[in-house]
Amino acid sequence: MNKRGLLIVVSGPSGTGKGTVCQALLQKRPDIHLSVSATTRKPRPGETDGVNYYFLSEEKFKSMIEEKGFIEWACFCQNYYGTPRDKVEEQLAAGHDVILEIEVQGAMQVRSKFPEAVFVFVMAPSVEELERRLSGRGTEAPEVIKERLKTALWEYSNMEKYNYILLNDEVDGAVDRLISIIDAEKQRTERNADVIQEALKAKERIDLQ
Amino acid sequence: MNKRGLLIVVSGPSGTGKGTVCQALLQKRPDIHLSVSATTRKPRPGETDGVNYYFLSEEKFKSMIEEKGFIEWACFCQNYYGTPRDKVEEQLAAGHDVILEIEVQGAMQVRSKFPEAVFVFVMAPSVEELERRLSGRGTEAPEVIKERLKTALWEYSNMEKYNYILLNDEVDGAVDRLISIIDAEKQRTERNADVIQEALKAKERIDLQ
Repeated sequence: MNKRGLLIVVSGPSGTGKGTVCQALLQKRPDIHLSVSATTRKPRPGETDGVNYYFLSEEKFKSMIEEKGFIEWACFCQNYYGTPRDKVEEQLAAGHDVILEIEVQGAMQVRSKFPEAVFVFVMAPSVEELERRLSGRGTEAPEVIKERLKTALWEYSNMEKYNYILLNDEVDGAVDRLISIIDAEKQRTERNADVIQEALKAKERIDLQ
Repeated sequence: MNKRGLLIVVSGPSGTGKGTVCQALLQKRPDIHLSVSATTRKPRPGETDGVNYYFLSEEKFKSMIEEKGFIEWACFCQNYYGTPRDKVEEQLAAGHDVILEIEVQGAMQVRSKFPEAVFVFVMAPSVEELERRLSGRGTEAPEVIKERLKTALWEYSNMEKYNYILLNDEVDGAVDRLISIIDAEKQRTERNADVIQEALKAKERIDLQ
């Protein structure tokens, strides 16, 4: 029988590079699965249903919300985004480790439903660097950048609710540290009740001899 | 300023190979320090004071016990063994990670004094394998082997008090998994209060702008 897989939630503000870290992780560890989100927004050129997103109608999405079909969901800019529960459950049951790369708000929803999941908060090396990364994206007005930064720092204030803080100073190092977290978590005592049970049974058998 | 090092307690019954794993760890990661124990037993040929052990007189050892100079100590076969507190404290303060390779009883003493330490329990792949390893050491009588196995299994019943269970099925893999544990622990949120503080200060500064 397969041991249940690990659910790893990777989140953090925009500009911290969580997406890049997760993509690089999948390159190094193809045994880990990345959960595909569902959305009601229209596919962009080059996007494939089931690969980039599951593209759903608003009606379908809302009925899935009612049926508790999402682990977490949110509405941004009039589009819905969510993590379908059935796919994640299937993969975990098959013994695969699953990464959810989601926003901080979504992560807080997962936390109440999957307290055994591992929560990793990705942060930029410094607030100055985060500011640079948020500005570097385009030619937005300073007020827009300031709003983004404020949101990011509100998200930072939720950091303590995560199990790990992953500093993304450079992607390669960050990926290796994320792999350490995953490998270490599998060895935590509370995830190895079966091993303990087996040892205690052996003790009983030998004591009786 | 250096961040305080991590104290890693590696223990487990005889025959699980904890010594071999720790030695192999030091080869791969010379940045990690192994704590040298003190003992009142006589040096064996080839053993060097300060390298294999600190060789102390019984009088000196007992006065150190009274001065609370040991993190943990015990008496086996009329010889005292212990972990000198000052060396460990010095290395941790200098930012070095320190490994204590000690018995289960000693580990329980460390646990009450250093709750922030990381406790790793090394186990053999199976009780049958442990039995083989304990028998394989010499030509002892079956009763002696059975006693050793009983002790080992009593130690197994303390497993739940450890943070991690390290399966020593083969040394190389076990060392890599131990390294994962050390690298992951440094990223745990509760060990990064400084990072959180800094982010919250930045938030305050930006909010006021």
